[in-house]
Amino acid sequence: MNEFDLIAKYFAPLAGTEGLGLKDDTALYQPAPHHDLLITTDSFVEGVHFPAGMYGADVAERLLRTNLSDIAVKGGTPRGYQLSVSMRADRMEQWIPAFARGLETTQAEFGCSLWGGDTTATDGPAVFSITLIGEVAQGGMIRRSGAEKGDDIWVSGVLGDAMLGCRLVTSKPISPVPTGLELFAYESAYWRPEPCVKDKSVLERYATASADVSDGLLADVKHIADSSAVSVTLNFDALPISMGAERWAEAQEDPATAKQDLVSFGDDYGVVFSAKAKDRQAIFDSARRAKLKITLVGSVLEGAGVTCLDVDSEPMLWPETGYLHK
Amino acid sequence: MNEFDLIAKYFAPLAGTEGLGLKDDTALYQPAPHHDLLITTDSFVEGVHFPAGMYGADVAERLLRTNLSDIAVKGGTPRGYQLSVSMRADRMEQWIPAFARGLETTQAEFGCSLWGGDTTATDGPAVFSITLIGEVAQGGMIRRSGAEKGDDIWVSGVLGDAMLGCRLVTSKPISPVPTGLELFAYESAYWRPEPCVKDKSVLERYATASADVSDGLLADVKHIADSSAVSVTLNFDALPISMGAERWAEAQEDPATAKQDLVSFGDDYGVVFSAKAKDRQAIFDSARRAKLKITLVGSVLEGAGVTCLDVDSEPMLWPETGYLHK
Repeated sequence: MNEFDLIAKYFAPLAGTEGLGLKDDTALYQPAPHHDLLITTDSFVEGVHFPAGMYGADVAERLLRTNLSDIAVKGGTPRGYQLSVSMRADRMEQWIPAFARGLETTQAEFGCSLWGGDTTATDGPAVFSITLIGEVAQGGMIRRSGAEKGDDIWVSGVLGDAMLGCRLVTSKPISPVPTGLELFAYESAYWRPEPCVKDKSVLERYATASADVSDGLLADVKHIADSSAVSVTLNFDALPISMGAERWAEAQEDPATAKQDLVSFGDDYGVVFSAKAKDRQAIFDSARRAKLKITLVGSVLEGAGVTCLDVDSEPMLWPETGYLHK
Repeated sequence: MNEFDLIAKYFAPLAGTEGLGLKDDTALYQPAPHHDLLITTDSFVEGVHFPAGMYGADVAERLLRTNLSDIAVKGGTPRGYQLSVSMRADRMEQWIPAFARGLETTQAEFGCSLWGGDTTATDGPAVFSITLIGEVAQGGMIRRSGAEKGDDIWVSGVLGDAMLGCRLVTSKPISPVPTGLELFAYESAYWRPEPCVKDKSVLERYATASADVSDGLLADVKHIADSSAVSVTLNFDALPISMGAERWAEAQEDPATAKQDLVSFGDDYGVVFSAKAKDRQAIFDSARRAKLKITLVGSVLEGAGVTCLDVDSEPMLWPETGYLHK
């Protein structure tokens, strides 16, 4: 089956009307009046962002979900995406059906469709790239640059499960042995990160700046601090490390460092955002109504940089400020 | 220099205001009222779409130009693009400066800017992918599906130079030795394909369907025929093979097959389009005013498929209907 046949059989069924059956040179999209477009790109390399030979459906779900997270955290609604697939030609026929199934599941859950792309052969590791386009009401994008002195810093969801999920995926031992529920939480966090669709009501209404927790919490907070020209102080003990990850950290030789690792890893895909202190109670109430776990973790001050305080309110030494992709 | 530093130093200067300094999770674009968006993606793999180790500026120009061609041939105006770069981490620092320079030159010439993207490391061959977004007045997209029985088929520019350019690039001999002007034409055709920006006035006004000459003329015409549910007859002797390529073909052992190869190769990035026969003279006049080389090469009939007639009006045997990417 050649490139055209694979596209017709596995990708064309995923195409929205905007994709014109994947048969034209471009996709065609009619933007809603009075809306802005949000555009984001994420790429996965085999052996770097996922282990070689991993199940195609899982890779597709994770890739599309990381893109969806970028749109959701800015307050946007996803619409459609362009897909670039580069892999060994002799693997395509076996691999693409599952990959397409993963895209289909995720599209259906989050309401977007395939608009177009390119399929090419490489002799090297597979590379997948998605450019996702979303919409937000005119002027409604939540930027990184809106945090102001006096704002609170919030985190949605929990931290740490994705790091332990990555250990599972890369066959590194986890000791003590996780419970069944913990295993499920770790694997889900890694393969099915939850774009903050539920968080949107809270974000849209209250966030002054936001980012998703992808590079590592401190790095992501630093993006906000730098863009907003402010400093941020976080309270380490307030960070919402998951119960399973907390149990794992406490059993390590150096629990404090283990917790720092959990927080620095990234890939948890919750939202870190700033909001006015006066809205604190309204945010708690709004999150409760949205059944969203939300935690107050710090505050915005004058100055620059990110400081994390330990239980004695002393600044912690932090080995790194986030994951740098190799 | 890590990923963030490279982006800040070489890619951020290419960013339009839509790119938000490449510092946010998404780009932000405000579409013009009463316009549709056109979106296209092209990916290049090192060793497949360009020889390994090739000069970064050339690769960037060619990649962006192939995307620009897709937007232009649909009648659109390019606005901005997302860029995915995957390459060996230890090559990035040396390679990306020239790559960024090639993007800059092309952006400036065609009026678009970088909006965002992703930079990742791979141990394998480099993979570059661009998703380009353009605009067209509402309902103004020229589709592949609008050709009707009785329409003329036109080709802009010349055919064949790109195939000989590819021979040069891959160090295959060309005999007889090309003149200096021919060499320049071949190399330009390969590395600097000319998106049909000039053709746009003719296309916008008269084209009923269009495609760019990228897969090989017969394959590209077949896309139009299939999408429009018609058949197309081309006159082989009318095809605008370049003078240099014609001279090369005549010197080959089997000139007819050599000419078929020239026409089948693709990558010439002219436009093939259909238009009403009644507009024939107006199209000639309009092309002359636009200083655009344009050639009447065939006609649209009922039925399906593409037939190419030789000088005796006999259907030619055609080994392939275009380049299938490996």
